[in-house]
Amino acid sequence: MTSIPTTWYNIIPDLPEPIAPDLPAPGGRPGLNPQIPTGLVRQELSKASDIAIPAEVLEHYRAFRPTPLRRAEKLERELGVSARIYYKYEGGNVSGSHKLNSALAQAFYYKQAGAKRLVTATGAGQWGTALAAACRAFGLECHVYMVGNSYQAKPYRRVVMEMLGATVVPSPTPGTDAGREALAENPGTGGSLAIAMAEALEDARRDSGSRFATGSGESYSLLHQTVIGLEAQEQMAAYGEQPDVVIASLGAGSNFGGLAGPFLRDKLRGGEGPRCIAVEPTACPKLTRGVYRYDFTDSSRATPLQKMYTLGHAFSPAAIHAGGLRYHGTAKIVSSLYSTGTIESVAYGQNEVLASGLEFARAEGIIPAPESSHAVHAAIVEARKATAEGAEPVILLCLSGHGQFDLAAYDAHLQGTLDDSGLSTEELAVSLSSLPEQPETPAHVH
Amino acid sequence: MTSIPTTWYNIIPDLPEPIAPDLPAPGGRPGLNPQIPTGLVRQELSKASDIAIPAEVLEHYRAFRPTPLRRAEKLERELGVSARIYYKYEGGNVSGSHKLNSALAQAFYYKQAGAKRLVTATGAGQWGTALAAACRAFGLECHVYMVGNSYQAKPYRRVVMEMLGATVVPSPTPGTDAGREALAENPGTGGSLAIAMAEALEDARRDSGSRFATGSGESYSLLHQTVIGLEAQEQMAAYGEQPDVVIASLGAGSNFGGLAGPFLRDKLRGGEGPRCIAVEPTACPKLTRGVYRYDFTDSSRATPLQKMYTLGHAFSPAAIHAGGLRYHGTAKIVSSLYSTGTIESVAYGQNEVLASGLEFARAEGIIPAPESSHAVHAAIVEARKATAEGAEPVILLCLSGHGQFDLAAYDAHLQGTLDDSGLSTEELAVSLSSLPEQPETPAHVH
Repeated sequence: MTSIPTTWYNIIPDLPEPIAPDLPAPGGRPGLNPQIPTGLVRQELSKASDIAIPAEVLEHYRAFRPTPLRRAEKLERELGVSARIYYKYEGGNVSGSHKLNSALAQAFYYKQAGAKRLVTATGAGQWGTALAAACRAFGLECHVYMVGNSYQAKPYRRVVMEMLGATVVPSPTPGTDAGREALAENPGTGGSLAIAMAEALEDARRDSGSRFATGSGESYSLLHQTVIGLEAQEQMAAYGEQPDVVIASLGAGSNFGGLAGPFLRDKLRGGEGPRCIAVEPTACPKLTRGVYRYDFTDSSRATPLQKMYTLGHAFSPAAIHAGGLRYHGTAKIVSSLYSTGTIESVAYGQNEVLASGLEFARAEGIIPAPESSHAVHAAIVEARKATAEGAEPVILLCLSGHGQFDLAAYDAHLQGTLDDSGLSTEELAVSLSSLPEQPETPAHVH
Repeated sequence: MTSIPTTWYNIIPDLPEPIAPDLPAPGGRPGLNPQIPTGLVRQELSKASDIAIPAEVLEHYRAFRPTPLRRAEKLERELGVSARIYYKYEGGNVSGSHKLNSALAQAFYYKQAGAKRLVTATGAGQWGTALAAACRAFGLECHVYMVGNSYQAKPYRRVVMEMLGATVVPSPTPGTDAGREALAENPGTGGSLAIAMAEALEDARRDSGSRFATGSGESYSLLHQTVIGLEAQEQMAAYGEQPDVVIASLGAGSNFGGLAGPFLRDKLRGGEGPRCIAVEPTACPKLTRGVYRYDFTDSSRATPLQKMYTLGHAFSPAAIHAGGLRYHGTAKIVSSLYSTGTIESVAYGQNEVLASGLEFARAEGIIPAPESSHAVHAAIVEARKATAEGAEPVILLCLSGHGQFDLAAYDAHLQGTLDDSGLSTEELAVSLSSLPEQPETPAHVH
């Protein structure tokens, strides 16, 4: 039986190039966000390779971890491929995705720092649901600003958050300055994640017991997700296998980094390791078509600058169904791995992605979230390529979430009504022109 | 590691009283339905205790069986009870419920008998989804008449059926006599399960390669569900436990009989065994308030008469969210067990049931289907009673399905808008008056 890891793997000390330090935005305040608890700040700065998972977090991991790792034999047979395809399934918990791994850790550290209430913003709802579950686990209140359009279109995710005891409001609300401004500008607006984040930040700042918690993008959330890869290593070994290719979809980077990170440890230390492929949508191709520059992490330009692969903070991706992959930037760790050639990336359109998701669901009996279908599709492409070349690689993918609340996406795909136009060169150029003036790159500080 | 059973447990030879034979309806044709394949008919008549599961069915069981059996430790802690509560979870497969256990077996036998296409009727959609998955597994076409109201209100279940390759139409349709009649009578009707079944039966009869498959109520579907109880016996033993109380919800009876049956084997042979409790909604209380009489198994009066606990075939239950428990009758096996005092029954209202489902979801991270929440509620009631009495019983319940497509029920419960009026004595009397004239009971034939 697989055990649950008792430490997270901190990849930062093993990176081939140190991460460029965050810089204050022009006119912004220097230094780290004082709202972030010491426990999380320490994780960002630690030089240790293994960071102990607090006992309180481990206890809650035990309710759903270890998560299953299975061989997709029926899919292999239906495809007629010579590759062996394994998947790590993170969708079996109440939040429906891997996000709970970091939500539980964050709730623990925020509670330790004295918070009584966590506030957040959510688009499609996976992160909001995970934080609601984590707050319930640690006895914290949870308040979620949900993008108005999603609130209307995805009532089920709202109900799950409420079942878990969270309060959920459709953003923009008249209760914050940011919300009132947005409503005054555009009375019927369905909102955006940027507005919801601005509302949540404002809400958290005006109440001393409240804190704003964020779902991904920060190095600590990637750290928390390494339980996925650490468990998968042990499970693959139990099958007597070593993956030749490791594949995960790329939103901000915590799902990809969480699976791939532990598999890269030996390689980063001079040994052998698998190819690792980050899969993004053609509608939001930050690694395959973005630039490695200092940029804001959100469109409100309130955050410090981070050096990362970005499409520009003003980038507005098409309304694809994989809402979790519509972020303009890339986690600093993943950016560093990509800039040094340690990992690969590839981009696909949503129709081909959902066709593969459908194929997986029919063969394996789990409906993948549209985000996860990106990894499934890349695995199928790799398996077919290898079969044509007479190779028999072992492929491991992360099925980061289930798609039971995303059936409108598959429905639209089956009806043939899904828009699949990529990002034009002109749109990309306009968006990249929003990049801030690049600061002089300081000497790399570890 | 738990193994998958290779035989089903046939409880019929062990029943304390033989099952009363089916009788032709007044004016109806005698004998068994010629549409039912020999493989299934043999199972209804077999005197063997153990019936081999065909290798082809076993292969498909392997994709999702053995299903997990877990101790609900967090729920116990939150309730502060001295009982140990275990649950067997059947909702992890693509159909979302235990129904797939019988759908796979039926698809196999229908295919063996030469069918090319299975036709069925579905209300909330669990059975239709299970049959769609089973037909895909065995390369059969699948056509589903879905009650029109549900087709509109539960589009997600329709999409899952279509993803699995089934065609789904909202009933009534203009394509059948039964549908045309219903539409002529009531042009805007949202349909009913009785109409959908009539349409499916008519459709199956007019095409030689088509057969009508039914989700529950027949002895063979209860037989197929015994994999649940057989696995659970081995899993409880691995925990070093024997259940004192076994609890499942009661629709027609296959979920309850599938879990409880194997646990009753020793008791029926003169040994010891747990208390077994069938849980029904107060809106459809066939065991607690019905009568043990010959009745039609559907409201179209087309079927042979079966002796069972019934509320009358014309019974029209309130539109509770546990759609799978809205059947007027009870499987013959379960009826026999109840009439001989071998099992117990209890009825609860949907608000108390959903409150317990919510408590389970918050503690254990799985949202129970409203049907399954009936079992959860009864388990909580038993656990609290035992705690008050200073007892420490081991309770096992069947979590027959997940509730991710039933969030409207929990939403209504949270909003306090759920109607919870029970069945009045007057309504019950009217319904019971629909019972057909009782045939002279023939000598019991085994």
